[in-house]
Amino acid sequence: MPAGQQPNQYPVPTYPPPESEDEESWVWTQIKAEARRDAESEPALASYLFSTVLSHPSLARSLSFHLANKLYSSTLLSTLLYDLFLHSLSSTPTLRSAIVADLLATHQRDPACVSFSHCLLNYKGFLAVQAHRVAHLLWTQERRPLALALHSRIADVFTVDIHPAARIGKGILLDHATGLVIGETAVVGNNVSILHHVTLGGTGKVGGDRHPKIGDGVLIGAGATILGNVRIGEGAKIGAGSLVLIDVPPRTTAVGNPARLIGGKEKPSRHEDVPGESMDHTSFINEWSDYTI
Amino acid sequence: MPAGQQPNQYPVPTYPPPESEDEESWVWTQIKAEARRDAESEPALASYLFSTVLSHPSLARSLSFHLANKLYSSTLLSTLLYDLFLHSLSSTPTLRSAIVADLLATHQRDPACVSFSHCLLNYKGFLAVQAHRVAHLLWTQERRPLALALHSRIADVFTVDIHPAARIGKGILLDHATGLVIGETAVVGNNVSILHHVTLGGTGKVGGDRHPKIGDGVLIGAGATILGNVRIGEGAKIGAGSLVLIDVPPRTTAVGNPARLIGGKEKPSRHEDVPGESMDHTSFINEWSDYTI
Amino acid sequence: MPAGQQPNQYPVPTYPPPESEDEESWVWTQIKAEARRDAESEPALASYLFSTVLSHPSLARSLSFHLANKLYSSTLLSTLLYDLFLHSLSSTPTLRSAIVADLLATHQRDPACVSFSHCLLNYKGFLAVQAHRVAHLLWTQERRPLALALHSRIADVFTVDIHPAARIGKGILLDHATGLVIGETAVVGNNVSILHHVTLGGTGKVGGDRHPKIGDGVLIGAGATILGNVRIGEGAKIGAGSLVLIDVPPRTTAVGNPARLIGGKEKPSRHEDVPGESMDHTSFINEWSDYTI
Amino acid sequence: MPAGQQPNQYPVPTYPPPESEDEESWVWTQIKAEARRDAESEPALASYLFSTVLSHPSLARSLSFHLANKLYSSTLLSTLLYDLFLHSLSSTPTLRSAIVADLLATHQRDPACVSFSHCLLNYKGFLAVQAHRVAHLLWTQERRPLALALHSRIADVFTVDIHPAARIGKGILLDHATGLVIGETAVVGNNVSILHHVTLGGTGKVGGDRHPKIGDGVLIGAGATILGNVRIGEGAKIGAGSLVLIDVPPRTTAVGNPARLIGGKEKPSRHEDVPGESMDHTSFINEWSDYTI
Amino acid sequence: MPAGQQPNQYPVPTYPPPESEDEESWVWTQIKAEARRDAESEPALASYLFSTVLSHPSLARSLSFHLANKLYSSTLLSTLLYDLFLHSLSSTPTLRSAIVADLLATHQRDPACVSFSHCLLNYKGFLAVQAHRVAHLLWTQERRPLALALHSRIADVFTVDIHPAARIGKGILLDHATGLVIGETAVVGNNVSILHHVTLGGTGKVGGDRHPKIGDGVLIGAGATILGNVRIGEGAKIGAGSLVLIDVPPRTTAVGNPARLIGGKEKPSRHEDVPGESMDHTSFINEWSDYTI
Amino acid sequence: MPAGQQPNQYPVPTYPPPESEDEESWVWTQIKAEARRDAESEPALASYLFSTVLSHPSLARSLSFHLANKLYSSTLLSTLLYDLFLHSLSSTPTLRSAIVADLLATHQRDPACVSFSHCLLNYKGFLAVQAHRVAHLLWTQERRPLALALHSRIADVFTVDIHPAARIGKGILLDHATGLVIGETAVVGNNVSILHHVTLGGTGKVGGDRHPKIGDGVLIGAGATILGNVRIGEGAKIGAGSLVLIDVPPRTTAVGNPARLIGGKEKPSRHEDVPGESMDHTSFINEWSDYTI
Repeated sequence: MPAGQQPNQYPVPTYPPPESEDEESWVWTQIKAEARRDAESEPALASYLFSTVLSHPSLARSLSFHLANKLYSSTLLSTLLYDLFLHSLSSTPTLRSAIVADLLATHQRDPACVSFSHCLLNYKGFLAVQAHRVAHLLWTQERRPLALALHSRIADVFTVDIHPAARIGKGILLDHATGLVIGETAVVGNNVSILHHVTLGGTGKVGGDRHPKIGDGVLIGAGATILGNVRIGEGAKIGAGSLVLIDVPPRTTAVGNPARLIGGKEKPSRHEDVPGESMDHTSFINEWSDYTI
Repeated sequence: MPAGQQPNQYPVPTYPPPESEDEESWVWTQIKAEARRDAESEPALASYLFSTVLSHPSLARSLSFHLANKLYSSTLLSTLLYDLFLHSLSSTPTLRSAIVADLLATHQRDPACVSFSHCLLNYKGFLAVQAHRVAHLLWTQERRPLALALHSRIADVFTVDIHPAARIGKGILLDHATGLVIGETAVVGNNVSILHHVTLGGTGKVGGDRHPKIGDGVLIGAGATILGNVRIGEGAKIGAGSLVLIDVPPRTTAVGNPARLIGGKEKPSRHEDVPGESMDHTSFINEWSDYTI
Repeated sequence: MPAGQQPNQYPVPTYPPPESEDEESWVWTQIKAEARRDAESEPALASYLFSTVLSHPSLARSLSFHLANKLYSSTLLSTLLYDLFLHSLSSTPTLRSAIVADLLATHQRDPACVSFSHCLLNYKGFLAVQAHRVAHLLWTQERRPLALALHSRIADVFTVDIHPAARIGKGILLDHATGLVIGETAVVGNNVSILHHVTLGGTGKVGGDRHPKIGDGVLIGAGATILGNVRIGEGAKIGAGSLVLIDVPPRTTAVGNPARLIGGKEKPSRHEDVPGESMDHTSFINEWSDYTI
Repeated sequence: MPAGQQPNQYPVPTYPPPESEDEESWVWTQIKAEARRDAESEPALASYLFSTVLSHPSLARSLSFHLANKLYSSTLLSTLLYDLFLHSLSSTPTLRSAIVADLLATHQRDPACVSFSHCLLNYKGFLAVQAHRVAHLLWTQERRPLALALHSRIADVFTVDIHPAARIGKGILLDHATGLVIGETAVVGNNVSILHHVTLGGTGKVGGDRHPKIGDGVLIGAGATILGNVRIGEGAKIGAGSLVLIDVPPRTTAVGNPARLIGGKEKPSRHEDVPGESMDHTSFINEWSDYTI
Repeated sequence: MPAGQQPNQYPVPTYPPPESEDEESWVWTQIKAEARRDAESEPALASYLFSTVLSHPSLARSLSFHLANKLYSSTLLSTLLYDLFLHSLSSTPTLRSAIVADLLATHQRDPACVSFSHCLLNYKGFLAVQAHRVAHLLWTQERRPLALALHSRIADVFTVDIHPAARIGKGILLDHATGLVIGETAVVGNNVSILHHVTLGGTGKVGGDRHPKIGDGVLIGAGATILGNVRIGEGAKIGAGSLVLIDVPPRTTAVGNPARLIGGKEKPSRHEDVPGESMDHTSFINEWSDYTI
Repeated sequence: MPAGQQPNQYPVPTYPPPESEDEESWVWTQIKAEARRDAESEPALASYLFSTVLSHPSLARSLSFHLANKLYSSTLLSTLLYDLFLHSLSSTPTLRSAIVADLLATHQRDPACVSFSHCLLNYKGFLAVQAHRVAHLLWTQERRPLALALHSRIADVFTVDIHPAARIGKGILLDHATGLVIGETAVVGNNVSILHHVTLGGTGKVGGDRHPKIGDGVLIGAGATILGNVRIGEGAKIGAGSLVLIDVPPRTTAVGNPARLIGGKEKPSRHEDVPGESMDHTSFINEWSDYTI
């Protein structure tokens, strides 16, 4: 983490072993320390930090409280939502480990993310994904009307529209997130990074499996539109503003509207890094022969 | 309707004769039956379903209540908005028949729409269009400041920005809807389907007729931008992410940035179906010669 | 101003000398007169107009009140936000002159803007920018957690995501505004007009100076994506839906995905007008050889 | 009316013929004129006066709006209450004439009441009685759970606890009103004035007719407690702080704890005036032999 | 229970064995059945009944939800209060058995109480006592600032002011409840019934044990004031409006201001029944020699 | 202060010189220290304490914030009330010194008051008086409609009904406060203590000077009713539940209904202490010959 370059980054100690029970405690300890420091330096924010973070005994309670107070409406009360989130997070360890993985992913990949608490409290992409996971859990439990009502609130409040049936991996960064649309039969792998205004859409009015499948480690640039039951291979990169209607091979880069592969269809360039983690949005420019200003 | 394929679809009986008074009653009966079933199977949602649907004697009251509780703010009270919507819907039968037509359109064209009540309660595109129609009514009654204030609330809450002067037909599906922008002098025909992030925009700072005219049965894909007083012919299809700045002939398909006609400018391919109803987003891929991954 | 063509435009007297103290008073006088007229003609809106405009002694108080009541949440109370805005606007004359410049810019450039009060009350782009300026002030005062919390509310409520570190000039029009994303190290000059769904984004996970620099008088069309620390020269125009990854020279027009210069890379056409002010979105069509429907 | 003595009284023209349809219009015209004057002289209150009074076409709508916004809670929404009040008041002319009679009674009898709008907006006793009448209407329509829920809100918000089964006449002044308790089988006649902390209570745990019956024109002083199915005769006066457990003859005065008749049990003094209208609380002092400081 | 005489009473089956675990389940079953019946007969109330009762798996959750939504404010959020109530009720069986005892007491003693759900939802005395018990628990856990903040909300919302240090027994009926004040060192026994406007007050500015001790089975009439560390003996009755400053022997009746014993100080009349249960307010009238109208 | 006897009292240092500017700073320093201690020991309350106390730079701002968030309604917004309170308190030093005097009075006289912050945050009597003083200021500035609207909110929220024209001294303790009624022409001196349910009422429907005048240092017990333009002499004591209709001489004690002077009308007992400060409610019992249980 380029802490040196980012004076507004909080100091972060060495990471503990990943995905252990310890990791959740470790992140929660960081968050509380950050919130305490911010509350001390900024009294105007202290009330907010105590109510959202410092008064809670666990990350699950803090997040349940925060989501409930973000997503409630005059007809869906915050106490009901709080109950729903808390029960789901408490009883489902995989939801909690995904929260932690997403916090780490956001903190590591987005240089604008100054702290874990910054992500927990302010990243609408992070919050939308955590709420989606609870909606998805309800969907798999055949509590579909409730899942759809929750989906509607998430779409209203965060402008992030992920169908509750869509399956989303962990270690996800939704940067900015506004306008993201992910359809009913879409699947998103682990360690994927998706920018705002991205669509993983369907192909028509016939039901069935009709949305994209995004492999692990993929990076999808801002405004990219991927339509249909196509496969974006592991570690592929989709350039900003691209329109993708057919499969993209692993570790290649597709750009343009309609999208082409960098290096050509026959022998596309293959990169070694994992774009979903390296967040390299623009290094392909030199290879993109059509790009000429 | 592919009910067999969609286990989450509610059974729907044969449709009644269209646009009769009976149709409104029939849809309202469906909605109440769906809500009753959902309230029974999901006690956590029953309060919401009673307050939004089951306590109301008519579709117009239910929708007025729901919109008022979605759109109110601390300076525009829900009781004022409720009065406004209820008075407008009660006194204007064409608004009520448009509601019904949009409910049917959404249910028929979007395989993710599991029920009429799902659309009524959760589809921000549906809700935004119904609220817009009331704003448009106010506009035509020269109550412009109120129309603009309502417009502002719709844009804030649903992220759907339709100028109150814009004229919108019936049988409209706004799928996902987030980010839709429709300008002051735009006209949208009947049975049109528009995806999210679409812009029907103007051309400059000079007033007058400066926004697109969308014919009946048109399908506009996600992220398409159509600018200027151009005419999109009846039954045309605009591909996702396209940029359209000049007219598109009827029943042709325009794709790309800048958009080209599938089949070529001189002899474009013409399709027989009505894309606004068939929702076929991607069948043109094979014909799109430039599209090569 | 084409008042004659726009029957819904309010009559506007001759402008006073720009950026004088008088200008703020003059605009505030206009706004109150408009609000009084609207309150008289529309009793249903009078309460709203009195609470937001007519009960306040100054533009700074009116705007502070309005923003506080737009941006508050159950954990960030309106009284706290009101205090914050009022203190910032009262103590920082440059914030107030920027408000006035943006009001004038919006009124002059957007033919759909019928009055100054219309902009003040209803334009989410205008409101988001004013709130951003306060967040930016907090950022420069090293009150970063509060700046980020405010940023988060602006992004939630207005769907306008401007990092509090980004520097924005004055005389800005954000038309429609939904989905705008401006990154941490971006700079936007004076008299710039930006449409909705525009991204001024970064290039990766490394911090440092990584976002676009937009010169004075630039016009950026709807859905344009500009990535990386590139320079968009003074008076340049970026077409709707364009993807820009390298510098654009002053007074040229870049269009397409990837973007090209109208007139070609070597001898691009240069325009005389200031597109950020003239708002000419589409006159380049004839020169864009590839554009063929 | 001692308008001359009360510089803060609004000028009031000659009354129209009582209880005619004209009377309701006349009072409503007064209220609007008062509210308009106050809105002009006090901009800080104008928003409130427009939302509660000036934006409404009738007294029934204004009162329904005001009560709904006073009595709503997070589980009983204002739109539901508004509907309930408006429907009841619109369909029941006797409710509307009672509103008018109470407004006149309050204005005539309470020198602190400066205007009809003062009573309409600010008198919790007036508001509680009007809401009670709707609860009573529901009770008589066998909608008892709703009547009791409304009763509970009235008791919470106004601290006025009138069982929905109790029958209340018209021309009622509840001055200050806090702490008033009126039991299930109580009856209150016309032109009665009751001060705060008064109890019309029952006698035990057995049901049936067990609460006081208050005749026309009675005045009940602050803190008086009347228990059991006793009869307070027409035009009687109950002194402040009295405890009354047996019948009180017409036009007599009962004072003390336990109460005695002024003038003695056998030949009590009888007054000519109607205390419920003259509001003479203390003229009996000279006759009250026990009263000696 | 005089169900025959009270057509609005719900049928109630034979009681289960008292204070067993079964009793709580039994009462909860009754409440749900009542709420279901009311929801069916009154759609306008169904939303309220589902959110407060029918969506909850237990009495403790229902009450926690209801109290949280009654007592929250803009600075004490409902989710925080819900957590607090739920945790306290879940972990403290004596709180739950006291809830049940109070529900039974209210239902048996107050003929105006038509059902258990009527008490649970609408009786401010019942709700205030349950909230007080949680405040008292916090007080005994040395969480005094929180106990006092909760005390303040109870006093604001229910106008029932019970110091969190006061000890209250079970089987309590607070009828009407408005204005009740119980001081810091007061003790109230079991099976006590207290009407509204009652004060159990202190004697001065010196701390220490300075408030009344109320024995089991006592009935205190409306408006009675009991001051100082005096003892109201078991089964005593305090008449409405009485002022009591010294001890009252068991099973006697004190009435008047200042209070005297019925039958005289030396040989007071003693009653056999338990007034706190029989609720006989007025049978002493014949014996009260001074009472003469 | 009996801190030794009250383990829940916070340690309080020696008082500074009274009524100097220093006193306000000193009390505010105490309040912040108390709040900080409580926030540390009780995380669940920390958010509340930061928003109400610790985030504010002065007592006037803290109280303005707290009152605004207590008194706002859906039609009188908190930002408007905050502005009103802050402006009044900032510009009127006598209001601020009265706040301090009342805080000291409450802390010194009520043994249940554990800290200054306890009084500031939780004492409805204290809060009602401070809000009344602002309403009174508005009344004297001829802003009567606003004064009456504020009066109405105070009466609703705190159940304390003080007419805005009434003049109230400083060093006031309103203990419990519920149900207090003080009429239009009443005057209350300095260092007065008044318990709950007290009425300082008028005498009829004729305007003019018609309410009690309460001298300095008076103590009025719970439930006492004082009617008419009578004079309660300096240092007098009115027993709980008394009904007073004629003048009471200085430093005497009036008790009973109707009230008599302890010691008899001709040679009443005179006490040396100031009952409004000593809070001795019950020492007269031995002298009250009629009092016999």
